Formats: sequence, C-alpha cells, structure tokens
Amino acid sequence: MEALEYRERPVGVFDSGVGGLTVAREIMRQIPNEKIVYFGDTARVPYGSKSRETVTRFSEQIVRFLQTQQVKAIVVACNTASAYAMDALEKEIDIPLIGVVKPGAKVAAETTKNGRVGVIGTEGTIGSGIYSSYIHQIRPEVQVTGKACPLFVPLVEEGLWEDPVTDEIASRYLSELIDIGIDTLILGCTHYPLIRKTVGRIMGDGVTLVNPAYETAVELKALLSEHNLLSPSPPALGENRYRFYVSDAAEKFKRFANSIIKYGILSAKTIPIEEY
Amino acid sequence: MEALEYRERPVGVFDSGVGGLTVAREIMRQIPNEKIVYFGDTARVPYGSKSRETVTRFSEQIVRFLQTQQVKAIVVACNTASAYAMDALEKEIDIPLIGVVKPGAKVAAETTKNGRVGVIGTEGTIGSGIYSSYIHQIRPEVQVTGKACPLFVPLVEEGLWEDPVTDEIASRYLSELIDIGIDTLILGCTHYPLIRKTVGRIMGDGVTLVNPAYETAVELKALLSEHNLLSPSPPALGENRYRFYVSDAAEKFKRFANSIIKYGILSAKTIPIEEY
Repeated sequence: MEALEYRERPVGVFDSGVGGLTVAREIMRQIPNEKIVYFGDTARVPYGSKSRETVTRFSEQIVRFLQTQQVKAIVVACNTASAYAMDALEKEIDIPLIGVVKPGAKVAAETTKNGRVGVIGTEGTIGSGIYSSYIHQIRPEVQVTGKACPLFVPLVEEGLWEDPVTDEIASRYLSELIDIGIDTLILGCTHYPLIRKTVGRIMGDGVTLVNPAYETAVELKALLSEHNLLSPSPPALGENRYRFYVSDAAEKFKRFANSIIKYGILSAKTIPIEEY
Repeated sequence: MEALEYRERPVGVFDSGVGGLTVAREIMRQIPNEKIVYFGDTARVPYGSKSRETVTRFSEQIVRFLQTQQVKAIVVACNTASAYAMDALEKEIDIPLIGVVKPGAKVAAETTKNGRVGVIGTEGTIGSGIYSSYIHQIRPEVQVTGKACPLFVPLVEEGLWEDPVTDEIASRYLSELIDIGIDTLILGCTHYPLIRKTVGRIMGDGVTLVNPAYETAVELKALLSEHNLLSPSPPALGENRYRFYVSDAAEKFKRFANSIIKYGILSAKTIPIEEY
C-alpha cells in the first residue's frame, strides 16, 4: 500500500484540446475522490489529421509536463494519441498509464452479438487500425469497419450538436456502416459523445453505442485499485480539486469546458508546452 | 539595383497549412519568373482559432526558417498571421514583407460604392478587426462588418467545395451580411477562394468578391519592382523553381497541394519548425 500522501496525488488527464473533458467528466462522476490535473494542447489542436511522429512528440512533451505536477497515473484522453503514442509513452514513465482505445475496444468485443463492429474517429485513429487490433486480440473473428469523420469535431466545436447539417453529414459518414449491418459502434473520438443522440438516431435502436470515455473511467478505477492508488477520501474543503492547463487561449478553453463540465472550472493556466 | 544573383533569390511564402497555396498560385500566374519557397505549418494548423501570442510565436519561427533559405522577400499568406503578427515580424527582418490583409483591404475600400463592406474569415482575423482598421485608413466612412466562418476551412479540406451542406452553412453565415446590404465582400481566409462560387451564388450578382490572394500577388510584384528585386528571367531549366516545406505529413500536403496547383509539386520536405 502506498503512503496516504501518495494516494492523494492527482490523476493526469490529457487531450489535444477540449475533447478529453468528456473523459475527465466520467472520472469525476465515477471516482469523485480523485483529484485531476487536465492538460489540453490548444496551441497545436487538432491531432486527428497529423502524423504518428508529430502526435507522439507532442504527447511525450505533455507527459513530461504532467510528471512535474506529481500525478500518480496518466490517462491519455485522446483517441489519436492513444492510437499512436502509447508504446512511446510507456517507455517514458513508470506510473500507471491508460489510453481510451483499449477499454473501448474491450467493451465493443464483449458487446457485439453479430460479430460486426463499427468504429468512427479521426483520420489518424481510423488509419492506425488500432481498435481493430485490440478487438482481434480478444475475438479474432469479429469484423471491424472503421470510418473517419473529419467534420464531426468542427461541427461539435461550432455547437451544432443537434442540427440538420450534422444529421446530413452523419448520414453520409454512417451509411456504409449501416449497409454492413454492424450492431455495435465505437465513438472513437472524445468529441463524439456530444453528438451521440444524432449518431444513435441515424444508426437506429439495433446498434449499441460504445463510449470509450465511460469505459476508460471504469478501467481507471480498476487500475488504481489494483495498484492500491485509490484516494480514500475526497479532497479537503478549499483544496484545488480539478486543475486545468492549456498551451493556448485559456479563456476560450474555459468557456467551452464549462459547457461540458458542470463542476465549474475556476481557471485554466497557459503553459509553454514546447519547452517540456 | 541589386546584383543579379540577389534578384534571382526566391520569394518566401508561408501559411498555417495548405490555404496559402491559393496565394502562391497567384504569384506563379502573375510573376512567373519568381522562384518560391513555401512553408505550411501542418503540425500546428489551424491558426484561425488560436491566440495572438501563439500565432505570432509560430510566425516568427517560420520567418527565421525562411531566412535560412535566402529569400529576398516574404509573403505572409495567412490572414490570421497577417492580422496578428505583422508588427512583430517587421522587427525580425530587414527584407520586404507583405501580408494578405492590406492589399485586400485596399481593393475593398476602392471597390465599394454604397460604403458597406463585409469581411469573412477565421475567428482570429475577424476578432482582430484588422480589415476594418486598414479600410478606415483609406476611407473612414465605410461601414465594415465582419463574420467569422469557422466551418468553411474544414468543409474545404473535406472537399465539399460544391455541396448542399456548404450551401446551407454559407447561407447561415452570410445572411447577416445580406441583410446589411453590403456591395463588397472580402474573402478573408486563404481557403475561401476555393468556395467562391458558393459564396458568390449566395451573395448574388450585386456583391463584388475581393480575393486578397490575387491582390497580394499584384502588390508583391509592385513591391519587388520598387526595390529592384524582380527576377529578370525565368529560372534555368532543371532548376528547382518551387520548393515546399511543411512541419508535418508531407505526403498528405502534397496530395492536397496538387489539387490546388497545377504546376506539379514534386516534393515537400518536413522540417522541425519548433527548433527555429
């Protein structure tokens, strides 16, 4: 058992920008005793259209920053970074590290009845084939079909969560997956839970949506428990429970963040991530 | 008059990504004797939603890189960088420097008959009020109305140049400008010339579209002439006329670039821009 003081350290969570807040939100809900240090790389967002090398370099810098914040574990709350950088990050640190892809893949493999799973995400995540690899480790016979949906993130960030335009774009992106007859769809980008109603309506009742943000919080709790790292009690009154850092435009981040998380984000601090 | 060798140096052109290629294309058309070194910051694209400080820091690094390529002049082929960083960049260098905003503003001020001008662009460009400032230097009585159109860049990059979705989004963004009764509209982002047909159809025949890419090439020619820097003859056969550099994903850049520029982009090289 680690010393109490160590167990009370925060969990580090990072994303290319605001999307990972859907993961932070699930952690807040499921393990409310935990403190969180969140980093959003708003100076270099998005990651989804960039190369493995670049996304890995950016992720390594962020992990080095998070370690300066004495985190006890790190959550890679970005599907693209989870798809590209996990191996490199594991070499960088010796604290528990968890991405969003593996938990999402596991639940999808367990969920599908007809053996046909769809994955939607960024170009990077889909191009990497990472969800397919993890699913096949569990059930090699499952047929996994990926579809990149580059417009979903801009549509979400423009606030068009329920809108005829989002419906139209989603219908186009998803038609191939409907034709294949998938019964399980992984929302493989942290922005997508925000348009899950639209996606669910288009896919129909027969398709189960898997939200890796939710599954990641479940896995994180198990992982912390396994390492005897769960915080035994809520942070003391007046303590800074959730801290937010960004690489650019902290005010703008705060506005969007407050539309996702209801706990009240008191402040976000800008740090020069390139120097880490 | 500068030595011949100096006049035969290339012009540096930079943008946050591929958009500035619409400016490079105009330079190729209007002053075909000139060699070009183009840099697209594909690792950190887009700039339009980022802060003045960050866009300025990125632009300074790029200008330092371009200087290592012995350029004789620099074109800031990105509206957001032109809106935020010109003053800082002028301090950095002593060769001629030109942005896309001033030439576009000048022509808009000369074009409007009813004194009502619209500007569309990124959040950064519109928020800066830079087009308005330049127009008012020439004609203080002109009423300038800006409208940020954050979805246009992703729609262009998704290839939806002619599409009902682009029509619908454009109708929403532009309705305010139609209501105001503008007679001149500045396409204040380098991606927008690629959807000028859509924008033109929605605005109607009574509205003149100003393309700063075109006007910037005109101004560049005048500026080079003024400084006795025009290249007197085309580059020798076999010489590398146009060189392309990016900070990430050179192959992807090449594919998109070849859809914009018909001269054939033989190669694009990736360089670590953060180190400049």
